[in-house]
Amino acid sequence: MPAAELIELWRGDMLESAHRGHAVVWDRGGMVESWGEPGTVIFPRSSCKMIQALPLVESGAADAAGLTDEHLALACASHQGARIHVQRVAAWLDGLGMAEGDLRCGAHMPPDPAESRLLICSDESPCQLHNNCSGKHAGFLTWTRHHGAGPEYHQPDHPLQQSIRAAFEAVTGEPSPGYGIDGCSAPNFATSVAGLARAMARFAGAEDGGGPVNADRGGLRRSAMARLTRAMAAHPALVAGEGRACTNLMRAMGGQVAVKTGAEGVFVAIAPARGMGIALKIVDGATRASEAAITALLVRHGLLAPDHPVVGACLTDPLRNCRGVEVGALRLADGFSPAR
Amino acid sequence: MPAAELIELWRGDMLESAHRGHAVVWDRGGMVESWGEPGTVIFPRSSCKMIQALPLVESGAADAAGLTDEHLALACASHQGARIHVQRVAAWLDGLGMAEGDLRCGAHMPPDPAESRLLICSDESPCQLHNNCSGKHAGFLTWTRHHGAGPEYHQPDHPLQQSIRAAFEAVTGEPSPGYGIDGCSAPNFATSVAGLARAMARFAGAEDGGGPVNADRGGLRRSAMARLTRAMAAHPALVAGEGRACTNLMRAMGGQVAVKTGAEGVFVAIAPARGMGIALKIVDGATRASEAAITALLVRHGLLAPDHPVVGACLTDPLRNCRGVEVGALRLADGFSPAR
Repeated sequence: MPAAELIELWRGDMLESAHRGHAVVWDRGGMVESWGEPGTVIFPRSSCKMIQALPLVESGAADAAGLTDEHLALACASHQGARIHVQRVAAWLDGLGMAEGDLRCGAHMPPDPAESRLLICSDESPCQLHNNCSGKHAGFLTWTRHHGAGPEYHQPDHPLQQSIRAAFEAVTGEPSPGYGIDGCSAPNFATSVAGLARAMARFAGAEDGGGPVNADRGGLRRSAMARLTRAMAAHPALVAGEGRACTNLMRAMGGQVAVKTGAEGVFVAIAPARGMGIALKIVDGATRASEAAITALLVRHGLLAPDHPVVGACLTDPLRNCRGVEVGALRLADGFSPAR
Repeated sequence: MPAAELIELWRGDMLESAHRGHAVVWDRGGMVESWGEPGTVIFPRSSCKMIQALPLVESGAADAAGLTDEHLALACASHQGARIHVQRVAAWLDGLGMAEGDLRCGAHMPPDPAESRLLICSDESPCQLHNNCSGKHAGFLTWTRHHGAGPEYHQPDHPLQQSIRAAFEAVTGEPSPGYGIDGCSAPNFATSVAGLARAMARFAGAEDGGGPVNADRGGLRRSAMARLTRAMAAHPALVAGEGRACTNLMRAMGGQVAVKTGAEGVFVAIAPARGMGIALKIVDGATRASEAAITALLVRHGLLAPDHPVVGACLTDPLRNCRGVEVGALRLADGFSPAR
């Protein structure tokens, strides 16, 4: 099946632009519903950071390093390089006896307004701590140090990435057809939209297996999945930052649902109370459409109040120009309705 | 006909995202070729600023105010609010005995790095001169003052906008089905992709009718079209700015071709030597795709050297992450080839 029309941009009373995509909702009973082609292979990009963090928790490396839920939220984060992110990651590395130079994520200007203003106006360059993936990489370093593995942890043949691939294929329930190199230089394993939704449903359905004292691998995995989901939902500001859709959506759902965006129009949700996982990919990679589509699906499944301000911000509020004049609006395409 | 696949984003050896669109190439003989559905109605957005500037020139208002080609290039510009733009528009308004407060475009932070740094680090707010459309609006004010029309020149029922609509429908060869309000609060009249390409071909085929001394309206229009095209091609930095695709593409073509981008994935080209006009719209509104697609079409028609660095920057160079690692590339979709 081809991609489905999901989100439209209207200007006045005419359609101006449109976004197609693939979306899958999965729960304990299997696939609940889908739009587009569930078998479409995609790169989850940053939406799968909670999967990439499984070896960190399952191996005992997280506990050995005394990581808290804040650390685990940062390991799953695409943060915007605000002080709250940069300082915590710096302290995390310091606790490992490591430093910014041990990261392999590279540096980019942080989107956080205050931090970027600080850098721009002092003519300073951003460092690797500012990289939106620095928490994920701090988790990678924690695993590497715990296992005495080599420093080039981002290489696809590094034992950490092999361990991540095994976990990724196990929770998606599919062999990965391959990987691409992500913005942070780590491999990003491909899977189908259905596979990503299945993985999110497994995170949602995970029950605490008692943590590392439980020697059963299945129990360990379930425990790790539940712990990472709780950490994300409990620390929305660490997973993204002020003003960001992930943070605002998780706050709006009161810690009951974890959501995560990924570059190129990917978004996922984990709803433990419903054992439900959601995954979607906008074909053209537009973030405005992935944010609008996940918002619509969260409302559709009763996980997000339709009248919450974040629904307006991501989907229903009129679009205004720089003089505040209403110029248009996002709309759900026919057949992609929030009502069930 | 549905939209055609035009531009793909590949990560490693897998397709990650894709952009569909409609593109039409027109010359003196009519439609040369097309992709997608030429009849698709779109908002040209800023790609039609040279059409919106026709009344300014045809009415004699431009000459009465002593406007130069630099002014006309700014009237057709989506500039990035650099000093070279802001100072010229400020001087233009001063020459009219008007000021920034007479503009109705609104203010937004300029993308120009130096100017935005200046504003951010001095805690100053941008003014309306920084708006990418301030040159277009200075042209609007020049027409308004010349005709003694009211100050709310951006209202759809203002005689200026009625005059623009008449010119727009004449050069596109189609009645406009309606308008939307643009980011600068002026009406933006809709037309088909074919209509926009036809209009660009008319600009390309315009011969200098001798300017305002020629009382023939047809001659006046041809003169105005030729003059605006020359002004754009002669002043690439005023039409957009350093680092911008419009500026780099026009520089690469040595003033022989005028190109103009428009929000939501629109791009047009005017090639006088060939009497050729090009118009394209990316359905999802992505600028990366509209820039890649117009580059491919300019190369395809021998207007742009395939080995020029701007072709690499807009289309063929590998995509690298913040560590300089090659992660992917843009590709032309099958059936959208630069070779003829």
